[in-house]
Amino acid sequence: MRGSRTTCLKCFCQFLDYETPKVIVVKNQNLGIIYRLVQLLIIIYFVWYVFIIQKGYQAREMGPESSVITKVKGISTSEVPGLGEKVWDVAEYVKPPEGGSVFTIITRTENTALQTLRTCPESSSAPTAKCGSSGDCLPGEMHMLGNGQKTGRCVHLDNGTERTCEIFGWCPVEDKSVLSESLQKFVPEFTILIKNSIHFPQFRFSKGNIDESKGDYLKMCTFHPLTDLYCPIFKLGFIVQEAGENFTELAQKGGVIGVVINWNCNLDLDPSQCIPQYSFRRLDPPNEASSGYNYRFAKYYRQNDSESRVLIKAYGIRIDVIVHGEAGKFSLIPTIINLATALTSIGVGSFLCDWILLTFMNKNEVYSDRKFDKVWKNQEESKTAVTSCTDLSTQESSPVETSNGIQL
Amino acid sequence: MRGSRTTCLKCFCQFLDYETPKVIVVKNQNLGIIYRLVQLLIIIYFVWYVFIIQKGYQAREMGPESSVITKVKGISTSEVPGLGEKVWDVAEYVKPPEGGSVFTIITRTENTALQTLRTCPESSSAPTAKCGSSGDCLPGEMHMLGNGQKTGRCVHLDNGTERTCEIFGWCPVEDKSVLSESLQKFVPEFTILIKNSIHFPQFRFSKGNIDESKGDYLKMCTFHPLTDLYCPIFKLGFIVQEAGENFTELAQKGGVIGVVINWNCNLDLDPSQCIPQYSFRRLDPPNEASSGYNYRFAKYYRQNDSESRVLIKAYGIRIDVIVHGEAGKFSLIPTIINLATALTSIGVGSFLCDWILLTFMNKNEVYSDRKFDKVWKNQEESKTAVTSCTDLSTQESSPVETSNGIQL
Amino acid sequence: MRGSRTTCLKCFCQFLDYETPKVIVVKNQNLGIIYRLVQLLIIIYFVWYVFIIQKGYQAREMGPESSVITKVKGISTSEVPGLGEKVWDVAEYVKPPEGGSVFTIITRTENTALQTLRTCPESSSAPTAKCGSSGDCLPGEMHMLGNGQKTGRCVHLDNGTERTCEIFGWCPVEDKSVLSESLQKFVPEFTILIKNSIHFPQFRFSKGNIDESKGDYLKMCTFHPLTDLYCPIFKLGFIVQEAGENFTELAQKGGVIGVVINWNCNLDLDPSQCIPQYSFRRLDPPNEASSGYNYRFAKYYRQNDSESRVLIKAYGIRIDVIVHGEAGKFSLIPTIINLATALTSIGVGSFLCDWILLTFMNKNEVYSDRKFDKVWKNQEESKTAVTSCTDLSTQESSPVETSNGIQL
Repeated sequence: MRGSRTTCLKCFCQFLDYETPKVIVVKNQNLGIIYRLVQLLIIIYFVWYVFIIQKGYQAREMGPESSVITKVKGISTSEVPGLGEKVWDVAEYVKPPEGGSVFTIITRTENTALQTLRTCPESSSAPTAKCGSSGDCLPGEMHMLGNGQKTGRCVHLDNGTERTCEIFGWCPVEDKSVLSESLQKFVPEFTILIKNSIHFPQFRFSKGNIDESKGDYLKMCTFHPLTDLYCPIFKLGFIVQEAGENFTELAQKGGVIGVVINWNCNLDLDPSQCIPQYSFRRLDPPNEASSGYNYRFAKYYRQNDSESRVLIKAYGIRIDVIVHGEAGKFSLIPTIINLATALTSIGVGSFLCDWILLTFMNKNEVYSDRKFDKVWKNQEESKTAVTSCTDLSTQESSPVETSNGIQL
Repeated sequence: MRGSRTTCLKCFCQFLDYETPKVIVVKNQNLGIIYRLVQLLIIIYFVWYVFIIQKGYQAREMGPESSVITKVKGISTSEVPGLGEKVWDVAEYVKPPEGGSVFTIITRTENTALQTLRTCPESSSAPTAKCGSSGDCLPGEMHMLGNGQKTGRCVHLDNGTERTCEIFGWCPVEDKSVLSESLQKFVPEFTILIKNSIHFPQFRFSKGNIDESKGDYLKMCTFHPLTDLYCPIFKLGFIVQEAGENFTELAQKGGVIGVVINWNCNLDLDPSQCIPQYSFRRLDPPNEASSGYNYRFAKYYRQNDSESRVLIKAYGIRIDVIVHGEAGKFSLIPTIINLATALTSIGVGSFLCDWILLTFMNKNEVYSDRKFDKVWKNQEESKTAVTSCTDLSTQESSPVETSNGIQL
Repeated sequence: MRGSRTTCLKCFCQFLDYETPKVIVVKNQNLGIIYRLVQLLIIIYFVWYVFIIQKGYQAREMGPESSVITKVKGISTSEVPGLGEKVWDVAEYVKPPEGGSVFTIITRTENTALQTLRTCPESSSAPTAKCGSSGDCLPGEMHMLGNGQKTGRCVHLDNGTERTCEIFGWCPVEDKSVLSESLQKFVPEFTILIKNSIHFPQFRFSKGNIDESKGDYLKMCTFHPLTDLYCPIFKLGFIVQEAGENFTELAQKGGVIGVVINWNCNLDLDPSQCIPQYSFRRLDPPNEASSGYNYRFAKYYRQNDSESRVLIKAYGIRIDVIVHGEAGKFSLIPTIINLATALTSIGVGSFLCDWILLTFMNKNEVYSDRKFDKVWKNQEESKTAVTSCTDLSTQESSPVETSNGIQL
């Protein structure tokens, strides 16, 4: 009767047994109330915080692919004492002109007179420039913060008494005699169009910050967070003001302002719900020694085979368009992980209650006797290796047997 | 005999007790089958979907450090009616020339005649430009979309009858008389070399999109997804076509095309398995008012101490090289989290079966009696605080005792 | 007595029952030790690795918003054989000059003589340039790697015997006769100031890499990882050396070097603990055919109404400032997920021990009898559907009953 076929069948039958833990039901309201309260708290935390607030059922993707196209419009004038007025248009004050995500709007320039490569006295502000005699000027020496290579002669500055080392370089050197042109008069009126399109590859979701349905409205609209959200045309004055900066000061010393476009999209909703949020922040450390933002560039000319240049130190407002995005969409894995965590956590409640039960309510061990069903070694025939523990346990557990015991 | 030493020993022994839940084995095939089926489903989901498809055993890192170096090669010609032919080489049509990740290949230009700072009639297309009498022109007024500052006079346009306000600015102004030069004839043949190297700091993994083993092959190869994957040299025509755009139209109005390099690496495999995928997408909103891509820049000249410039409105194809990457590598934490979740989820199966067991198969409570071992208050000597619940439970649970009861 | 009110009350009372699993306590040291050891291992793993090393209690945010402002200082000279010396300042060797995150410091140039649009012989190095007779030169043909459009004539090169096709383009063409100017002499002394400010939007945390408290110290300090961490002024020589490159060679052929700023911030600590780490790495594939980094640009001049240009092939060191960041801050969700995982994992220990218990220690089924409480169908009155399994189980489980059985 105990053939291999039967054994195999037995295995299979055992495989189909359903096992469920045996449970002690403690009829005790107080404990029950505690138990249910703990469970309630845990459930509330998960349903409300994890799933509703934190959207624990969504997979998230950060850092979308992004492309930014900018276009500045506007025109301004600058007054150069003595040289009269100058008109600045886009081709002149936007650097670089290509309309990328980082560009500078020049607000002030300091122009040196036409320079050529020759010898002239070093600027008195340069280090190791001042000299008493030619002995102070090492021929061929160059100081990294100077303007050229020392010839070794010590010469008078144009403005008379003061003497500095003569250098070979682009002369005349940049010094206090530079002409400052400020075109900030109309700059706050300049408008900046920012076209931004993003793409979340994981979710295959693309969107732009321009409403392509409405046709020509881009021609006249300006941005407003409520009425004209999909019209990303910003007045420079508006940007600076939103960043909490003083325009005049900024235009004077220059600075960098970040236009942060933040896409926070819940892709379980309609795509139209995924709207860009614009924020503006100054990015260069303001209260600091080398404050402000400026850079030097030169325009090169050639006249009867000799090259000359105009050196321009440009102060400006640099706009950094920073795109930041996050998208969330329902996904099984995070959902199930959070659900499993919830289940486990609910279980935690019983730890607490078991402890209460067995510590405070356990009058002459009535609960522990029913909960714990002790089995000790000497129930096995193996009398070998009887240790102090088994002895002990036998002793202290003997009385229990009557209460619970099926003596084998 | 009950000295502190023994007590301490007892504690230690209790600490070494092994506790395992008591289990009811229900010999019922139908239930067993349901139970195993539920388990099977859950196991399949985790093994197949979570671990195999979603690689739940890997830690992931997004957004690698990336560096892009580009180089354009090619030469083209443009025909200017009247002025004859012009030849364009890299130094002329690639802006900016440094070979970064964003650059423009100029396909068409609109050149204004040599401009100087003086007075001339405003373009008739500018707002508030047209005038009947000088009264219409406010001296000193500047319109942001105009070309200069109004002098206050109302003058005739070169082309006769029409009158506009005179302005001070770069003259002659840009208007319909601009010369359009198109060099699109050979542009599709231009080749773009894109060198991209990425680095995943978390996994300390670096790779480039060029196969450095093969020596000179970069000189003659062109990209092919299958045969020449590691030859990132793209014909501009190929890029535009892959992006699904019409080249002629794009070259005419300009546009922005994204070359997306996607690194999706499974670092548990050999590094050679981590290969870049290239995709091409148009990035600027096409069907829209201010469609296309163009920008203005100027070339400055100086002749006998007066500065002049040529204003160029450049239409072009801007290439944005966008690098996107994700790497996964085996890591303990996600693995264990997913395993734990799997275990918990498998447990969920028994919830279902318990419910079936106790609801449908529970003929005269045979299962519930065996599963639930009730303990009620009056078993404790404490007769205090006997509530309606304990009364109830005592009453309704009395019969059960016989079936299961060890009466204390 | 069994009114609906009572029933309802009963339900409510049952709801307040506290259920706790019935447990078998196995008084067996060896098993207990194994059990506790397994638990210990799991606890150590979670406490030490998951929570302490991997900070499993933190939510993490990658890829902060970042803005980079750079400024190069320094001056150098170059010797042109025949044309004497030239001085290079920032305005000349930094391209683009705006001080963004990617810029090139020109270290060597190859200048072609002043070019104008006319006809001249093609460079002999250009493909399909060499010709024996005019028949070899297809009029109007343009080779993408050539310098212009073939006129159809086959002419002698300036240097005598060799003949190439005549082209129309910018002439003279770039060839071996270019003048190479190297300004690398002082370049290693150049200093680069890198201002970087980051912002983690999720944690609302901003920081810069400049210590704004100390006032003028930026004027004289240079970076040192230990003493001057908050002085991001780097000598170019230092950067190249840190990247493990040979400066002379790099300056000669050009190359791209990445300055990686890594912000790894634990926002549970004081913000001052969140410090940038700088690392330097060469980014362009070095041992490769088109090695090095160079690009072409032109300076345009206009003399008596004819445009001319100087074509410059610039070799340089391109600096890519790459900002990479990760911030972690305590958050409930990951903490609880990891805790729940820990709890589940600890439970895993008992699987192992149960298996040991029931496989190796289960002398004449003493443990299994106590652990498993079998219920079989014929206990239910339903005599219907008696299957082979129930028969089997009845038979083999009959003996067990005596040991454990409450026969119904």
